[in-house]
Amino acid sequence: MTAEPAFAPRNPDFEARTRDSFTRQGFMHHLGAEITHLAPGAVDVALGFREELSQQHGFFHGGVTGTLADNAAGYAAFTLFDADSAPLTVEYKLNLVAPARGERLIARGRVIKPGARLSVVRSDVVAVADGVETLCGAALVTIMRMAGMSDERAA
Amino acid sequence: MTAEPAFAPRNPDFEARTRDSFTRQGFMHHLGAEITHLAPGAVDVALGFREELSQQHGFFHGGVTGTLADNAAGYAAFTLFDADSAPLTVEYKLNLVAPARGERLIARGRVIKPGARLSVVRSDVVAVADGVETLCGAALVTIMRMAGMSDERAA
Amino acid sequence: MTAEPAFAPRNPDFEARTRDSFTRQGFMHHLGAEITHLAPGAVDVALGFREELSQQHGFFHGGVTGTLADNAAGYAAFTLFDADSAPLTVEYKLNLVAPARGERLIARGRVIKPGARLSVVRSDVVAVADGVETLCGAALVTIMRMAGMSDERAA
Amino acid sequence: MTAEPAFAPRNPDFEARTRDSFTRQGFMHHLGAEITHLAPGAVDVALGFREELSQQHGFFHGGVTGTLADNAAGYAAFTLFDADSAPLTVEYKLNLVAPARGERLIARGRVIKPGARLSVVRSDVVAVADGVETLCGAALVTIMRMAGMSDERAA
Repeated sequence: MTAEPAFAPRNPDFEARTRDSFTRQGFMHHLGAEITHLAPGAVDVALGFREELSQQHGFFHGGVTGTLADNAAGYAAFTLFDADSAPLTVEYKLNLVAPARGERLIARGRVIKPGARLSVVRSDVVAVADGVETLCGAALVTIMRMAGMSDERAA
Repeated sequence: MTAEPAFAPRNPDFEARTRDSFTRQGFMHHLGAEITHLAPGAVDVALGFREELSQQHGFFHGGVTGTLADNAAGYAAFTLFDADSAPLTVEYKLNLVAPARGERLIARGRVIKPGARLSVVRSDVVAVADGVETLCGAALVTIMRMAGMSDERAA
Repeated sequence: MTAEPAFAPRNPDFEARTRDSFTRQGFMHHLGAEITHLAPGAVDVALGFREELSQQHGFFHGGVTGTLADNAAGYAAFTLFDADSAPLTVEYKLNLVAPARGERLIARGRVIKPGARLSVVRSDVVAVADGVETLCGAALVTIMRMAGMSDERAA
Repeated sequence: MTAEPAFAPRNPDFEARTRDSFTRQGFMHHLGAEITHLAPGAVDVALGFREELSQQHGFFHGGVTGTLADNAAGYAAFTLFDADSAPLTVEYKLNLVAPARGERLIARGRVIKPGARLSVVRSDVVAVADGVETLCGAALVTIMRMAGMSDERAA
């Protein structure tokens, strides 16, 4: 369901560049999220359960699921950009298909249509409980390539 | 654009019940979010800027925008439920229409179609910079009413 | 809920241009659809009931509701384009909130965020039965402006 | 990308029942659409190009793509229902990822999460030109099971 598509990156340095941008997000750091897989057109982002990430029943909050789904999608698209472009999420749609219960949450972003301007990406989010994965979120994400825009924050 | 719809709540105690459920979300507490407006079919959720809520350019992270949009929608629907039902987000779609730049973020959930089973809710998210609001997110959210389900976490 | 936003069109001839493009769609003609309202950033598209437009219970088919919602949105965005640009639907999301029962279906596209590249548009669809409107669809639509592209079919 | 999931149907007569309901849709007949594949949790719906199904550039109209995506999804979910339930589209989101150019359009609905109440379904739509398939639409669809509701039109 989340098999790797085969894409050729335009920027040979895509891996370092993607990880570097990811690191600059205060919010992802705050959540304790990390990239656990990275290939052209494919990025996984994962984090462990903490009480601060819960909703009222003690599962991962839907906002965490959405954040991971969107982020994995944006960076999956980013891996295929040239060195002068940055990703911007235009919109996403997320179905929360099961409670996100478990010790770990993993979002798998997979580009289904790279584009000069817009890329369309699928993100599946699974919760891992006692080592068993359950699909808890399915997203469809539109990412815009912002040409000639550094991905670094202005000083 | 986010005018109040006129709905009659089924549960006279809807305000206390909604605020109580909101308080039990570890994640919303973690984000520093609070309910700033509450009426039948309408809930605003807001938070202030902190570095931990930023993306790589220093604006509010899209995940924060999405979390607020979804949460305001869920609680807007919740205000119209009877006392024995809990809200569950089925899915949402969010357009990020402008950078979420500013000192404050406010999501305004407004029920457009309450239902016995499913409610459809619009959420507009504005960023407030120097007191001026800019629309940065527009969401359409589907909330399910879970009948006979306490909204409290099992002990 | 579908109040007119106030936008200044870039192309003084926007009305003729929008109507002209609408007319060239074989499918809209096939459905019997027509533009019933047109202003900068706002287009209504409507059609009457016919058995051929029904689903299995005799109401308007969801595909007709979706087509109208998308089309009204695209042309609402189009009214704000310059003379050399054409609209392209990037994606849309539609909630079908009630059965589309009645003698007439009207979609009201209203731009909520015009953009140099992408415009975000809301479309509400109402069914009219015995003169009474019922909201049956709510959509959020992303439209791309294709610069330097004639909206006419290549000969 | 659209591999068959493995699901056990509850109604042994699911195939006849699904085809029967499909046939009662005036709109699908009007479009010339037919079911070209049917298995538990999976339905393909296809149609051939006709001028009446075109948009202003002569490709399949986005409304046709959306209608097929939604319909294939609804019937994919329907195959897994018991004999007394009918499908209702709650909402769908569709990305139009390439022009729908060609002689044939095929939507492939695949259930990714069947549910007692709600099912989540992916639909990919491909256009076939000179026998070559191009992905032109990607949808995520929420279908509700309406229990105790005949799928037949009241007399």
